[in-house]
Amino acid sequence: MAREELIACQERIFKFIHRTPILRSSLINELTGADIYFKCENFQRMGAFKMRGALNAILQLPYEKRSKGVVTHSSGNFAQAVSLAAKSIGVKAYIVMPSNAPHAKKAGVKTYGGHITECEPSLEARAFESQKIAEESGATFLHPSNDYEVIIGQGTAALELIQDKPSLHSIIAPVGGGGLLAGTALAAYHFGDDIEVFGAEPEEADDACRSLKSGKIQTNISVNTIADGLRTTLGDINFPIISRHVKDILLVSEQEIVEAMRLVWERMKIIIEPSSAVAVAAVIRNRDSFKGQKTGIIISGGNADLSNLPF
Amino acid sequence: MAREELIACQERIFKFIHRTPILRSSLINELTGADIYFKCENFQRMGAFKMRGALNAILQLPYEKRSKGVVTHSSGNFAQAVSLAAKSIGVKAYIVMPSNAPHAKKAGVKTYGGHITECEPSLEARAFESQKIAEESGATFLHPSNDYEVIIGQGTAALELIQDKPSLHSIIAPVGGGGLLAGTALAAYHFGDDIEVFGAEPEEADDACRSLKSGKIQTNISVNTIADGLRTTLGDINFPIISRHVKDILLVSEQEIVEAMRLVWERMKIIIEPSSAVAVAAVIRNRDSFKGQKTGIIISGGNADLSNLPF
Repeated sequence: MAREELIACQERIFKFIHRTPILRSSLINELTGADIYFKCENFQRMGAFKMRGALNAILQLPYEKRSKGVVTHSSGNFAQAVSLAAKSIGVKAYIVMPSNAPHAKKAGVKTYGGHITECEPSLEARAFESQKIAEESGATFLHPSNDYEVIIGQGTAALELIQDKPSLHSIIAPVGGGGLLAGTALAAYHFGDDIEVFGAEPEEADDACRSLKSGKIQTNISVNTIADGLRTTLGDINFPIISRHVKDILLVSEQEIVEAMRLVWERMKIIIEPSSAVAVAAVIRNRDSFKGQKTGIIISGGNADLSNLPF
Repeated sequence: MAREELIACQERIFKFIHRTPILRSSLINELTGADIYFKCENFQRMGAFKMRGALNAILQLPYEKRSKGVVTHSSGNFAQAVSLAAKSIGVKAYIVMPSNAPHAKKAGVKTYGGHITECEPSLEARAFESQKIAEESGATFLHPSNDYEVIIGQGTAALELIQDKPSLHSIIAPVGGGGLLAGTALAAYHFGDDIEVFGAEPEEADDACRSLKSGKIQTNISVNTIADGLRTTLGDINFPIISRHVKDILLVSEQEIVEAMRLVWERMKIIIEPSSAVAVAAVIRNRDSFKGQKTGIIISGGNADLSNLPF
């Protein structure tokens, strides 16, 4: 099924998104001994792959549901993705944000036409407020990663990568909530020629690594990582996909993340967010394993906070 | 002559350089009312257009001269460009750098195989040391901007832009030493269909603007600008070309430069150096003039100092 769903999704969303470029860097190839293809979702609309999943989830709603809008709670990229995706289709988006969310994130949501409701800065308050809006307005709740339509949407980034570069040996994607990694794994399984898929995760938020090892969803004890997009945990919809199709989760340190981010900024002249640098760092750290391979890296996004850089 | 020279140069250097992409931004188009085509020389080898001019100047030397090497003095991109261009062709590059040049710039020159000679941090000492090396080794001195072969080389960036987007109304390039602007003006004159060419310059280093107005080369009184690539003055080879073919020099403030740089980093997710932001700022400041136009901007480079950002 996923094979047909990925193709149908690609056709469904293509006119609302950019087919992002695939870049290469001779310097990073020299450094790693691999032949790396960077799928640049930092150039995606609103600056991240999340646009794909948000669009697919909304477009898969029946018209009578769409007309009542969608609601999500997020302090990050998904709030902006839902706002812009909904605006592109003419659907109302309710976004629940913690009162202490950064001003820039709130401004981003407003720019894209999302209707913000503020709540206390706790997960419980966010869930309660979203539930309340859904009941009162009839809006459909969208989860940022643990939703099959979202997973299929995120998978179209890897699908495009494989369509453009069919001979890859491996693909690495960062893993936070697991939507991108699960979608990437489905795309690689159904469209690749024995492509190995790896997740990349900060040591400081290594729930996916422990979940894959133990066979059960684990939570994070701490989330003390600069990769703010990867602080969330896996869900019961994406975890089985990851368990089945992902070969390993590669961990990296905070220092390795910052060094990889700086390397890409300085040498490739593109802005990638810390979560994307996690995947780059994973290849650098494991260069012996990737040596001689054609390797795809999903550069998940470019929404870095320029006022608060680690260098 | 320049028409044929530009074409011959393009053929001469193409295998040593990247044909850089042309990017667009719907947000910046909305902001300005113009339809802007960014010619991204920040993705050029060594991160700037200067690679083009350095290559052409070296490739135009007779073999017996090439074998004795080339020499230049520079604390910036041209030193790296000459080093990498010379290395690509198998020619020795002597680079005279002031003893107080930033470590990163010296490291860049070394990475690209340039032989550094340090001197006192004054223009006189740099010129003296270069002259000495030229006399002792027989190496040919290369000037970063006031050299016809360099000007033709730099002009190939605009030539590619016009080949890819033939219907431009205007092109803007930053102006420091004047090599890029003169080359851009020649390319637009010989290959464009009535393209207007503008220079963009910091108010704090406005020698080109005053030179164009007065008809005589003027010097800078102060060079208190973040756009470190634009602190130099015009020369007697590029000034007549600029006088003849450039419509106007547009000035921008330091604040406008920083805001434009941040806008491009945040919204386009690409790293541009302050000198490139000067050209972007010029279109934003003069949006009434560029409204409705197809406008090319030469993004000169991406060698920004990440340890010393203005935001």
